Amino acid sequence: MVKLIALYKHPEDKEAFDEHYFNTHGPITAKIPGLKKMVVTKITGSPMGGEGAYYLMCEMYYDSHESMKAGMKSPEGKASGKDLMGFAGDLVTLMIGEENDGSE
Amino acid sequence: MVKLIALYKHPEDKEAFDEHYFNTHGPITAKIPGLKKMVVTKITGSPMGGEGAYYLMCEMYYDSHESMKAGMKSPEGKASGKDLMGFAGDLVTLMIGEENDGSE
Repeated sequence: MVKLIALYKHPEDKEAFDEHYFNTHGPITAKIPGLKKMVVTKITGSPMGGEGAYYLMCEMYYDSHESMKAGMKSPEGKASGKDLMGFAGDLVTLMIGEENDGSE
Repeated sequence: MVKLIALYKHPEDKEAFDEHYFNTHGPITAKIPGLKKMVVTKITGSPMGGEGAYYLMCEMYYDSHESMKAGMKSPEGKASGKDLMGFAGDLVTLMIGEENDGSE
């Protein structure tokens, strides 16, 4: 599986971030054509203690690089990207990855 | 599900990193008691073009925070941690997260 990974740094206002993320950004993003699965991970800390290097991670799964590209270019993908840049442009790191399940 | 996330920065020698990661570190880590699933993602780039902010991500799933802690404290967990620090201590960022599956 191919996935788009969004890593968010800790926002200044976590409550406002969560409100926008879960009630606005998530639903907009979930509509992107070709998106197979969206997994949100809340970072709860570091095994060394203290808070994690990031606040939140979202993994968005697609069947292929082509369907991911098509999704991002769709009106829904553009709406998600625009919304993202508006509320978290300075917090987000985006990466594309290929997942292989090591051991189940 | 609870997961331990390891994010690796780009190594100087990618071939040596891969060799150690897939042939030594992965198998050591896979033996940690309580580990339910291990998913390795190779970062292939950024949607903005160019290489990703990280080189590789590994997600290690456990049933609970308690079983993760117990796994890390086990002899196998300690062996994995020692090996990790030896070959990638300067490359790795470790975080603990709680996954919730947004939309399937």
